[in-house]
Amino acid sequence: MLTVDNIQFNSRLFTGTGKFSSNKEMREALDASGSELVTVALKRVNEHRPEEDLFHHLREGNFRLLPNTSGVRNAKEAIFAAQLAREALQTDLLKLEIHPDPKYLMPDAVETLKATEELAKMGFKVFPYIHADPVLCKRLEDAGAVAVMPLGSPIGSNLGLKTFDFLKIIIEQSRVPVVVDAGIGAPSHAAQAMEMGADAVLVNTAIAASPDPVRMAKAFKMAVEAGRMAYEAKLAQPVQHAVASSPLTGFLDED
Amino acid sequence: MLTVDNIQFNSRLFTGTGKFSSNKEMREALDASGSELVTVALKRVNEHRPEEDLFHHLREGNFRLLPNTSGVRNAKEAIFAAQLAREALQTDLLKLEIHPDPKYLMPDAVETLKATEELAKMGFKVFPYIHADPVLCKRLEDAGAVAVMPLGSPIGSNLGLKTFDFLKIIIEQSRVPVVVDAGIGAPSHAAQAMEMGADAVLVNTAIAASPDPVRMAKAFKMAVEAGRMAYEAKLAQPVQHAVASSPLTGFLDED
Amino acid sequence: MLTVDNIQFNSRLFTGTGKFSSNKEMREALDASGSELVTVALKRVNEHRPEEDLFHHLREGNFRLLPNTSGVRNAKEAIFAAQLAREALQTDLLKLEIHPDPKYLMPDAVETLKATEELAKMGFKVFPYIHADPVLCKRLEDAGAVAVMPLGSPIGSNLGLKTFDFLKIIIEQSRVPVVVDAGIGAPSHAAQAMEMGADAVLVNTAIAASPDPVRMAKAFKMAVEAGRMAYEAKLAQPVQHAVASSPLTGFLDED
Amino acid sequence: MLTVDNIQFNSRLFTGTGKFSSNKEMREALDASGSELVTVALKRVNEHRPEEDLFHHLREGNFRLLPNTSGVRNAKEAIFAAQLAREALQTDLLKLEIHPDPKYLMPDAVETLKATEELAKMGFKVFPYIHADPVLCKRLEDAGAVAVMPLGSPIGSNLGLKTFDFLKIIIEQSRVPVVVDAGIGAPSHAAQAMEMGADAVLVNTAIAASPDPVRMAKAFKMAVEAGRMAYEAKLAQPVQHAVASSPLTGFLDED
Repeated sequence: MLTVDNIQFNSRLFTGTGKFSSNKEMREALDASGSELVTVALKRVNEHRPEEDLFHHLREGNFRLLPNTSGVRNAKEAIFAAQLAREALQTDLLKLEIHPDPKYLMPDAVETLKATEELAKMGFKVFPYIHADPVLCKRLEDAGAVAVMPLGSPIGSNLGLKTFDFLKIIIEQSRVPVVVDAGIGAPSHAAQAMEMGADAVLVNTAIAASPDPVRMAKAFKMAVEAGRMAYEAKLAQPVQHAVASSPLTGFLDED
Repeated sequence: MLTVDNIQFNSRLFTGTGKFSSNKEMREALDASGSELVTVALKRVNEHRPEEDLFHHLREGNFRLLPNTSGVRNAKEAIFAAQLAREALQTDLLKLEIHPDPKYLMPDAVETLKATEELAKMGFKVFPYIHADPVLCKRLEDAGAVAVMPLGSPIGSNLGLKTFDFLKIIIEQSRVPVVVDAGIGAPSHAAQAMEMGADAVLVNTAIAASPDPVRMAKAFKMAVEAGRMAYEAKLAQPVQHAVASSPLTGFLDED
Repeated sequence: MLTVDNIQFNSRLFTGTGKFSSNKEMREALDASGSELVTVALKRVNEHRPEEDLFHHLREGNFRLLPNTSGVRNAKEAIFAAQLAREALQTDLLKLEIHPDPKYLMPDAVETLKATEELAKMGFKVFPYIHADPVLCKRLEDAGAVAVMPLGSPIGSNLGLKTFDFLKIIIEQSRVPVVVDAGIGAPSHAAQAMEMGADAVLVNTAIAASPDPVRMAKAFKMAVEAGRMAYEAKLAQPVQHAVASSPLTGFLDED
Repeated sequence: MLTVDNIQFNSRLFTGTGKFSSNKEMREALDASGSELVTVALKRVNEHRPEEDLFHHLREGNFRLLPNTSGVRNAKEAIFAAQLAREALQTDLLKLEIHPDPKYLMPDAVETLKATEELAKMGFKVFPYIHADPVLCKRLEDAGAVAVMPLGSPIGSNLGLKTFDFLKIIIEQSRVPVVVDAGIGAPSHAAQAMEMGADAVLVNTAIAASPDPVRMAKAFKMAVEAGRMAYEAKLAQPVQHAVASSPLTGFLDED
């Protein structure tokens, strides 16, 4: 069981609400995923278009909402957005995303640290989305982040764990849960993150943009559980020389 | 459901019997894996040491046995071994492994093709273990193999799908089931093989050599199912430019 | 200095003649590459279109010609082609390529071995182009091949050394020179092959299809030399923990 | 020719002075490398042990010295160290390294930005060593850095360009030269960095720790030149389907 700042989660798969073709499909996929933490963009929280009715579809799910600040460009905007989110959703949970770069949506290390420091003092439970930068992760932890969310590869790229070597260091050093976010495009990527000891993963695009989001959600659910189970049962290490599974030599010699 | 030469399998995880610390543990792991096809070295079939009693532990499982020729060095030895296996286990199923190289256990393309041709004529249902060589796979198919078993990486290496680019071609071209064998060291590797369209995987060492084989077997079971499910729901393709999951721009501009 | 069957080569970069935009440009690039062994398709040898005049441009170069059998589908066709080549070019050297698959041009292991056996008996100095299959390489060596040419990745793919783990085994085991062929799309790929101990590389497309073939040829020349030099000076091994280049601790403490 | 803040360099290979077995060997390797910018730890600048006599060996070389702040843990220490360096070496050039983590020597994004801002105002020409973080690189550029030095992989790891996908973005976006630093363990790594458009690389351990540093230095020199040349001549892109180098079909059909 995963514990983030006293909240317990049975599921280590965090999900998102973007990019689904309909709210109904979104809700079915979220349910199939077993996810207990679902991120939602503040911008959408703020909309009150009745035809959209996102919140109607998020109501009474078996999950908490994790508002995110996607779209803000600096700490000041992030703090303002966080306050709106707290009021609208009645939650202290916050996924902090600050990306001044509109093309690759890469997070801003310095502004993210600054915002985390302030938001933590204001009582927010901050999940910062950041580069897979081991020193930054430690500093965010010191600043009061309840978890760190290093990226696996550029957002929406489906490239998997390109930051593998740095995630290893982050996981080794972190005292708060490490949630791998961004770039996870396949269940095998999610399983790999769990196998290496990540505490959770956040998956959105790979589920939402699938032709069959419900089925894909279920695939990710199982892959995350499989990866965690393998981590607990301890993976074998890669080796260079062959080691036969079956007794090799002398079969016919002995007859 | 997977069909290999008219035999139907609910599970796409094939397993092995080598390297377990005890026969009891082996049987528990095999049951936990849900595997319906379990390979066993002929040498061990041939043993009748009562204290070992491998077959007692394989009896009445929810799986078929797939005898393998591990330990033979050429087609002639393989054919002799196959006949012994058929008699001992009363099955036409045969995993054909010919590896003259005692260090890396790499399969021999030429002897494997020769043996497959003869064994198919003798009524065997041959599953040849081979290099991830697309042309060879087609020739084995033409020679009557009921499936092909290209390697992911050197046996026992746990290095995963190092032959990815060649497996893709094999899967694209094959008319018989493609079973990725050797090198699968983690559930994420098995999931990746299934995601790319492999029909099944064979896993032995990674389960047997785990400190907790039963749990690891279950992890592989789930990962294989997850990977297959993702294949059916269609994976997103890797892209180079970021695509945001959440509506990105203009959050604060609109307030 | 590289020796293949008593022929000495100063350059470890073998090149090809396909895909250049003109014969003049081809010749300039070949000269810039420093290559002393240049492969040429038999089909082109066989052409006598005066406007083409390939051979005029290959004359009096500082290189030997290595006719290849590209386009043949089996051993029989290969042997016939080899005889034509010997007659036309007055050389026993032969790059043996047998690829029945018109899409990926993957080599045929079985036919290649069969043709090598026969051609070696007929006095040809055979350079077989094959999959990175360690056992096959040893068998070709036993059959009389003067070198082996395992592929790095699919022909024309520019994907580099996807077969790295298998090339390592081949290089470790081979008693004849190992020439990495196919898939080398960048000088860094060629350098990597040399660093790991390959005896030579064959590069064609990456030079010929460059907008500036002469410059690219020179780049490959230098990269091959650099890679070989690094192999001789011994590369450091990858490590997991950081090791500082500069004396790290205590700088200010001591002031 | 590379220009960094009005200084012109013929060589795109920057080197270091750590880890050589003797100062004499260091000097010979630096000369063989052709490097025109050589980094040296401030701590060593500060030493006046005559038996060491590092500076005697660095005198009158064909290179400038680039003092680095290796060993400092925050901006304040870095600024102090920079001032000492300027005085001791009479240069405004400064490689800024701030790594509070003694195990992996990962750089600190926030302190590095802070120090860069201050040092630039003080007239230093700052080369900050940092994570391959695209947003941070842009901020350092805005803060007055004359170049950025993103890491390829953990320092001393020899793992090559593990940050490839992020380096691509950095190179695409940067208006100051991008120098790939750390993790470059082989000439092929250096060539790859140049091929992708990096302006220079910094190599230290891989040369200094080689059994033959002079030869290895020369190998890196050539690889860097080869990679740059290939970048200028434009590399072919990786493709998935085979494209034959030689005219493929119909060889024998036409006879």
